[in-house]
Amino acid sequence: MKSIEEKYLELKSKSGTHSPSIQTILGVIPELKIEVDACFLSNPYATELFLSYLKRELLDTGEINRILEFYPSQSFEIAKLLSKHVGVNEDRIFITNGAIEAMQAVIHNYVENKIIVNIPTFSSYYEFTRRDTEVVYYSLQKENNFSLNINDYLKFVKAEQPDTIVLINPNNPDGGYIKHVDLIRIIESLPEIKNIIIDESFIHFAYEDSELELKSIVPYLENYHNVIVIKSMSKDFGIAGLRCGYGIFPKGWVKDLTTNGFLWNLNGLAEYFFRLYVRKDFNEKYEVVRKKYITESLFFISELQRVKGVKVYPSRANFVLIEITSGKTAVEVATELLVKYGVYVRNCEDKIGLNGEFIRVAARSKDENEIIIKSIDEVVNS
Amino acid sequence: MKSIEEKYLELKSKSGTHSPSIQTILGVIPELKIEVDACFLSNPYATELFLSYLKRELLDTGEINRILEFYPSQSFEIAKLLSKHVGVNEDRIFITNGAIEAMQAVIHNYVENKIIVNIPTFSSYYEFTRRDTEVVYYSLQKENNFSLNINDYLKFVKAEQPDTIVLINPNNPDGGYIKHVDLIRIIESLPEIKNIIIDESFIHFAYEDSELELKSIVPYLENYHNVIVIKSMSKDFGIAGLRCGYGIFPKGWVKDLTTNGFLWNLNGLAEYFFRLYVRKDFNEKYEVVRKKYITESLFFISELQRVKGVKVYPSRANFVLIEITSGKTAVEVATELLVKYGVYVRNCEDKIGLNGEFIRVAARSKDENEIIIKSIDEVVNS
Repeated sequence: MKSIEEKYLELKSKSGTHSPSIQTILGVIPELKIEVDACFLSNPYATELFLSYLKRELLDTGEINRILEFYPSQSFEIAKLLSKHVGVNEDRIFITNGAIEAMQAVIHNYVENKIIVNIPTFSSYYEFTRRDTEVVYYSLQKENNFSLNINDYLKFVKAEQPDTIVLINPNNPDGGYIKHVDLIRIIESLPEIKNIIIDESFIHFAYEDSELELKSIVPYLENYHNVIVIKSMSKDFGIAGLRCGYGIFPKGWVKDLTTNGFLWNLNGLAEYFFRLYVRKDFNEKYEVVRKKYITESLFFISELQRVKGVKVYPSRANFVLIEITSGKTAVEVATELLVKYGVYVRNCEDKIGLNGEFIRVAARSKDENEIIIKSIDEVVNS
Repeated sequence: MKSIEEKYLELKSKSGTHSPSIQTILGVIPELKIEVDACFLSNPYATELFLSYLKRELLDTGEINRILEFYPSQSFEIAKLLSKHVGVNEDRIFITNGAIEAMQAVIHNYVENKIIVNIPTFSSYYEFTRRDTEVVYYSLQKENNFSLNINDYLKFVKAEQPDTIVLINPNNPDGGYIKHVDLIRIIESLPEIKNIIIDESFIHFAYEDSELELKSIVPYLENYHNVIVIKSMSKDFGIAGLRCGYGIFPKGWVKDLTTNGFLWNLNGLAEYFFRLYVRKDFNEKYEVVRKKYITESLFFISELQRVKGVKVYPSRANFVLIEITSGKTAVEVATELLVKYGVYVRNCEDKIGLNGEFIRVAARSKDENEIIIKSIDEVVNS
């Protein structure tokens, strides 16, 4: 019989460059007890908030039945709904079944000959490309804490002349953040690039200063015809099972795409979420848990830096890239954390552009963070 | 101020060739009281069955929270799960966010120069085509009760030489059914057609004889390299809000498509549904409500035929095409049914290939069916 370790490693290898979900892991290894999912990069307090609304408005009322039985609205209805809240005309909002569908639509339909992807990164940006698209990697340097050297990057882009570049801000898996003023500088330096994709899936966890205010590029989009924004709701709102995302696309794209597709990509609960997302009462409560979670993440990352045998890279997101320096491999550490402590972290051995033994760890709730730190300390240094 | 009628007609015109969903209608016209949704083509007893499982297994246990918070499994995990139940190798099962995503994937990626679509039909089969695909219509004749004349059809296809043909079985919106033996004859007569798309979204409501047994083409697919099956779960299982569907594709397609996309198209509740779908206890109960609903639909359609001022076309599905012969228009009848009686039916004025005043009416539960018949009788003949 296979051990839990063997089953987990087999699952991981079958999931390609992504992590097997908790659902998948528990389906195959029901004997495994997962205490803390520090692989999933989400705000658990936002999940709680959403679930409290769901309970009050859909479960206690029985309204959930109607939502699951009947067809949800067509996507354009939801785009219209989001327009004012997001601050962009509805004809530029492409509502999707998870942000991944927006990425896929952009990469399959608008990326042409060459795309520059900064590594390490979220692998779909290079894996989803068409066969006729060349992927060129720009390496974020470990020696530079994976932060983007803007002058060097601009020089690289101008030399390569791609049609598309991608900036995840803050970047996954390292949490490196490009400040608003620097992002504007990059955009304004590259008017010749057809598509500048800015992935703001983690922007709610980033901040410019101790006010912890959210600084999105979206309110500035009117000035730039070539910027595409991708937004996942799974992380900031902690609702990955709902599959909610959207893209903000250049004029004309949404009309083009919906001419022959993408009519009903939302499920009923995703529609319910989007209707909450634009509500004042929900947003006021959300803003409180957003800041609470950022503050705890900041504390969590600073505490992690006290652990011996690891190097913690700087992050302005809700997760952190950790290099194991104690001599153990990332696979060993991730497997031991999962099997012995029930702590699920992202083993980064499959991430291109990472040389060394890296794991990525997400901040969770306060109590869970303590378990994570204690477990990592014990595993790394045992 | 706009009247309810005006608001409804405006909504309908904005929804293109589809009906606005109940969610959308109630969002715009909250004062409207919808008593019976006879536009949505689903089995209400199957909805009840699913909801009873959901309540017991997810709501009462609190398990719903985990399902909405975390990522669902990747689609290939669900394909593996379905393989045995569906009777097809997992590498041919393409799991989708509603059957519409399977249609879109086929039409965008595998339909080439010419597609033949039988009309009247579900409009996405011609609307989702690429700009470089020619759509050729084959008209089902009203004089022939919209049933497919197989010899004539085969002659038409052979003359047109398309790469793709589509057969919805039973057909939407008329419920015309192609018997298994005839379907096999069509397939075997057309080995030169690259793609024979068979849409079985309503097959659970069809029958060959009074045994009411389900007769799908799927168990025969091994013999035919050119048959594609599209399957919606929204209708037979009454769960349109979940967005569950799949396609059964020729060898190689699923691998091709998932090489650069379609990793997480299922939401958490859709995954839960698919896990139910393969369970013996669920299937035994489902089979009972499937036959119960077919029997009631049969009775409903036979009762409708007693109403004056309408012609009811033959159907072997859970819905029926009705021509208004009393002098009123379909728009008048549909609007009056909705506004005065709260009965929502499909006004078919936008369906190409239908000359005359047609509405499509779905069978619902026994009590609702009585309301539908009484309302139609009163509206048509007032």
